[in-house]
Formats: sequence, structure tokens, C-alpha cells
Amino acid sequence: MVYEATATAPVNIAVIKYWGKRDTKLILPTNSSLSVTLDQDHLRSTTTSRADASFEAGDRLWLNGKEESIKEGGRLWTCIKELRGWRAAEEAKDAAKPKISTFPLRIASYNNFPTAAGLASSASGLAALVASLAQLYELPQNASDLSRIARQGSGSACRSLFGGYVAWQEGVQADGSDSLAVEVAPREHWPDLHAVICVVSDAKKGTSSTAGMQQTVQTSPLLQARLKVVPQRMADISKAILDKDFDEFAKITIADSNQFHAVCLDTQPPIFYLNDVSRGVIALVEELNRAHVEATGHLLAAYTFDAGPNAVIYAPEANIPTVVAAVNKYFPQAEAFPDPFKVGTAAALPAGFNEAVVPAGGWPKGAVKQLIHTKVGDGPRRLGPEESLLGPDGIPKTLA
Amino acid sequence: MVYEATATAPVNIAVIKYWGKRDTKLILPTNSSLSVTLDQDHLRSTTTSRADASFEAGDRLWLNGKEESIKEGGRLWTCIKELRGWRAAEEAKDAAKPKISTFPLRIASYNNFPTAAGLASSASGLAALVASLAQLYELPQNASDLSRIARQGSGSACRSLFGGYVAWQEGVQADGSDSLAVEVAPREHWPDLHAVICVVSDAKKGTSSTAGMQQTVQTSPLLQARLKVVPQRMADISKAILDKDFDEFAKITIADSNQFHAVCLDTQPPIFYLNDVSRGVIALVEELNRAHVEATGHLLAAYTFDAGPNAVIYAPEANIPTVVAAVNKYFPQAEAFPDPFKVGTAAALPAGFNEAVVPAGGWPKGAVKQLIHTKVGDGPRRLGPEESLLGPDGIPKTLA
Repeated sequence: MVYEATATAPVNIAVIKYWGKRDTKLILPTNSSLSVTLDQDHLRSTTTSRADASFEAGDRLWLNGKEESIKEGGRLWTCIKELRGWRAAEEAKDAAKPKISTFPLRIASYNNFPTAAGLASSASGLAALVASLAQLYELPQNASDLSRIARQGSGSACRSLFGGYVAWQEGVQADGSDSLAVEVAPREHWPDLHAVICVVSDAKKGTSSTAGMQQTVQTSPLLQARLKVVPQRMADISKAILDKDFDEFAKITIADSNQFHAVCLDTQPPIFYLNDVSRGVIALVEELNRAHVEATGHLLAAYTFDAGPNAVIYAPEANIPTVVAAVNKYFPQAEAFPDPFKVGTAAALPAGFNEAVVPAGGWPKGAVKQLIHTKVGDGPRRLGPEESLLGPDGIPKTLA
Repeated sequence: MVYEATATAPVNIAVIKYWGKRDTKLILPTNSSLSVTLDQDHLRSTTTSRADASFEAGDRLWLNGKEESIKEGGRLWTCIKELRGWRAAEEAKDAAKPKISTFPLRIASYNNFPTAAGLASSASGLAALVASLAQLYELPQNASDLSRIARQGSGSACRSLFGGYVAWQEGVQADGSDSLAVEVAPREHWPDLHAVICVVSDAKKGTSSTAGMQQTVQTSPLLQARLKVVPQRMADISKAILDKDFDEFAKITIADSNQFHAVCLDTQPPIFYLNDVSRGVIALVEELNRAHVEATGHLLAAYTFDAGPNAVIYAPEANIPTVVAAVNKYFPQAEAFPDPFKVGTAAALPAGFNEAVVPAGGWPKGAVKQLIHTKVGDGPRRLGPEESLLGPDGIPKTLA
């Protein structure tokens, strides 16, 4: 009997940003956040977890084929311990359940997007780990319960336990019991939201978000003001999602991305994630919006940036051809656009679009390396045994 | 009898930044600010004002040889009107005074630094205008009185009426009568402060500060928090200046520059003045400081950025060779460093300086175009008639 489960989990990109912990051990945030889950058809982490009494003692884990140590007290260790503990409790309640909580684990995880793409892989990776272990252990806990565990692996991972539109409620309890993810709306409620990720080169590795956010907590005089702004934004953007009001959604998304980077800059020493190319994408989207508002009264797209230079541009599906055409025209990419939705790159820009926002001659080829076009997606999926990442010996197949 | 005066006025670079007006007509700021006046031996505006009954009616003004219109109700017009009104009041009190307030004016102004250098020329230019007219009209008003006029020409110009360390007190009166510049300390109190200006290329013209600061007032949720932070910073940096405490001066200067750019980024649409080269200079100075603190317990230098990509690096004279050597090494300039103080470019960097903050191979030549080395300086000067910028006909000599 093989006890194994393989799950995939999605990437999520926040529109209300998480930046700052009030408890670094439990990963309790200083503010609530909200994200859009992206489609696993395009971006996903896959994790296989297997429990087997015949394995040599001790758990082992591989990430993209490279073995990672599971340090006692560390984030991976905490997630595994919590889920195993739940399994043990279930086993104690029901003598018929095999005691697989006592078996050593072998875990293999794989991201289908290159780390070099600069996309936060910890959120999808930890969510896939938690989802696969919950499936392996046949836990009765729901996604919000699991999100509480994933949160302790990587804060934003808690939001990847749901599809659609997801809030991470900061909570007030010291033990973190109410700091968890909840669904604001499922993907089916507003399936029209698409995303174009502009992968931007950056010579210099930025400050890690784990270190950076605590520097902000300790040194930014403006962070406290941000924390007073967020609750209203959470309420307003939740309503915008329920109303499928893209203009309001975009307005808040843009403002919150800029405010997050503002408090980074108000940190000592200052933290910069946006580079000149990021600024160029912002200038482009702002001008597309200005011209589109003039022509139609509506915003065309929203940009948001995590702790790195990559732009994520959200827009209703109908606006995506214009977004892609504009980025493709002024930021010619090093890698050809795979165009999964067949939108092409030839759409007309809004009447009145002012090219003066772009440097003369456009940006050099490769300033934006690659475009990834995806859309709002579903939550973690369960895969069949044929998708297992582990070979019969419990070693990743890629290493066999 | 020729009624003429020629004055020079200095550039000032704020360490507590002015950003936001509560009254755009009177130019009343949303917060107090504080600056260091730079030496006119290196950077200055020179203005000659002449009053002559024989001139054709109407005032005329040339800036760097180009005639500017003096629009009724505009900033230049307001400054001239106020100073002429004061002269008229003096004439009314003393019948012996010639009625030169009724004579047409010819004014020529010249900056000795290229506009392309991106240094704020409006502050020194308006201060020189006010100083030369005050001299021409033999006004009894003191520098704070004159600063109230200069403020209406260009806010930060009020600070260029003094040498040394200068505060612009925001004031509380609706008519602006208490919004003026005062001396915090004269140059002689702390003459040791030097400045190195890194002139940074920028392809794109940034948002004008006049437009930008009002966008911030209207849209930035964080600005109100900044306004609560500034009063303590004003008090603390004033004390640091009186104590000649460079560490405290530098700490506040750095924090306030970053906070100013943070509220720019929190504006809709966001305003960016720092580019990748600016970020590079910040990274360099932060690392010099980190290493210097480790070695000596003291900061080496402070950076500050106005509404543009140029860095101004303040440091005690003894630290300038290190600053120049570091910038010169990692940001090779297009123009040779004139080195007015003969510091060379060969000083050793602090032990423990980590080159990893600089891109491999350093920055491309010309990323920093030019270095200007200067120091804290004096207030407006009166020049002799041989320095007049106007020819006998009241037209700039350069146009004759």
C-alpha cells in the first residue's frame, strides 16, 4: 500500500500588499492583504508527499530536484509537524486509520516557472506542500484551517489555498488562530480578470522580503499611517470584486502597490524593488489609462509590483490585446510571447495615447525579458498517481 | 545718474524637504523646511536691476540672455510689484528720495551653472532678483522680510536670502506674513560641512515640482503622516547643526530625503525622481556609512535628492576625499572632476567596504556626468558696477 498524494497549488499576486509582521515566529502580519489567485494552467507548484514505514528514518524534501534541509524549528519543519500532528490526532480517534503519521516522509516539489522569472515561488510552493500533505493524511480540515498552517511556512502562501479572490485576515489573537485566508469571491464570480506578467531583468538582487519588511516595521515613520489606510482599502476592493467594478479595483490596486513601495523607500536603509524598467511600465500603463479614460470613461488596466521589479498588469479580458500590444511595442522582449489566449500583438492603442511617456526609440530589447499571460484561477488541485514526482525509492524521478 | 544694483545669490539644498503648498497663490507650504546654503564661489545666480526714466515704458527681464515675459499676476510680477511698492512707500516718507519706483526696470539674470545640470535654479535666481531690487531701491527691510517676497516668486528661494543653515518657517497666518526664512546658524558656526553634487543623466524629464507637490497634497494618504513627522525633525536637525553633530544631521537628512521620495511615490499618478543611478549612489553611500560606522562609530556622509535624479552628498571636509574617491571609482564621469579643493580621487575606502553593492564592473561611464564639490556658503552678495550684466541701453551685454 502506497500512501502518497500529489497536489498543485497556484501563484497569487496581492492587490493589497502584505508588508510587515507583528509576530515573526508565527508570521502574523501588521495588516490584512488581498490577492488574486492565478491560473495553474500557466503557473503552478506541484508537490508529491509520500509516507512509507520502510523509508530510512527522517523526512527528506527536494525542491526543483535539489534537496533542502528541514531544519528543526524552521518553516518547513513547522508546517510538516502541524499537519502530522493533525493526522496523529485523527489516528488516535479512529483505530482503523493506518498510523502513517509515524512514517518518514519523502517530499518532492517542482515549480513550472523558472526561479529566474522572479515570481514569488514560496507562496505556491508552501501551499502545494500543505495541500499534498493534507491529501496524504486525509485531513478533514478546510482550506481556511490549512491556510493557518501554510501561513507559518510563508505568509502569503496562506492565500494560495483558495482560488479566485482571497483575503488574508490579519486577526487579533496572539496565537494566530484568527490570522487566516478566506474566500472573497470564487473565480467563477468574476472570471473575466486577466493578468499579464512583465518579467523584468534586474542586475542587482533586491533585499529579501523577510528581512525588508521587518526593517520597515522598525524604521519607517510612514508605516503606521499605511496600517490605518489598509482596512478601508480591504473593504473597498472587496466590494469592487463583488461588484465586478474594474475601475475601482484598478484604482485601489495601483494605489496600494505604490504605497507599499513608498513605505519601502521610507525604510532605513531604503529598500528599492522598482527599477527604471518598472518605472517605464508604470508610465506606460498610466498613460494607457489616461487615454482610455478620456475615450471611454474607464481605466484600461492596473499594475502591481511585489518585492521585485516585475510588473503584474491586471485587466478585463477585452483590454488585454491593447495591453499586450503596448508592452510588446515599447518593450520588445528577448523571448517570443507564447500568447496562450491568441490575442496577438497588433491591437490599436487608445486614441490620444501620448508616446512621449516612452523613451525615444522604445526600451532596449530584453528590458522586459518575457510576457506571461494568465488569468484568475482555481485553488489547489489533486493530481493522479501518474503525476507523482517521486520514484519507487522515494527519490525524485528527475534524479533517478 | 544710473540707478542700478548687481547682486548674487546662492543655491540652497534642503535637508528637510519642502513638498506641498497650503496656499498656491501666496506659496505657503504644508510643512517647514531647512536647507544648507552652498558657496557662491562655485554656484550662483547673478542679477542686475536698473531703473531708468528714459527706458521705454514697461519692465523687461532676461534670464540667461533669453527674454522672459513678466505676466501680470505671475510670480516675477508679484516680486517686482512688492519691492517697488516698498520703495514707493519709502519715497512717500522722504521727499529727498528720487522717485525711481516710477521708472521702468531692466533686469538681467544669469546662472553660472548649466540648466542641464538639473540644479534648482529658481531658488537662487529669484533670491538674486529680490536681492538686487532691494539694493537698487535701498530698502531698509532685512533678509527675513525679503524672504517673504522671494517666497512668492519660488518657495525655496526664500531660503537663499541667508547663508549658512536656514529654516523656512511654515507659519500659520493666512496672509503668509509669518511664512519666512530665518537663520538657524551662520556658515561660520559650522564651516566644516562640504557638499559633492553628483550630476546624474536622466533621459526623461520628471514631473515639475510645482505640479507634483500639489498632486501629492491631493492624492497621497501618507502625506498627512509626514506632516506630523516634520516638526520633530526640524527641531532635531536644528539642534544637530547647533551642536555640529554630523551623525545626527546625516541620519535626519537621509531619512527626510527618502521620505520625500516616498510620498512622491504614494501620489496618483506616482512621481519618480530617483532613477537607477540615483539608487546606485544611495547604495554606495549607505555601504560607505555601514563600513565607516563599523570602523569608527560615525557616519561618513549623507545623501539627499531634490525633485530630480542628482545626488547631493554632504560630509565633513575630512570625509570628502573618501566620498570623491568612491564616486569616482564606481561612477566614472564623462567630465573630468575640477577638484577645486584639491582632494584628489585616490583616498582609501573604509576597511570592510563591500563592493557587492556596485554592479559588476562599476557603472557605465557618464552615468554620473559630473561632480561639483562645494561647501556651506554665505548669503547674497552685492557686486560692483563693473559686474553689471546690462549694457548702456539696458539690454544684456551678452546680446549687444
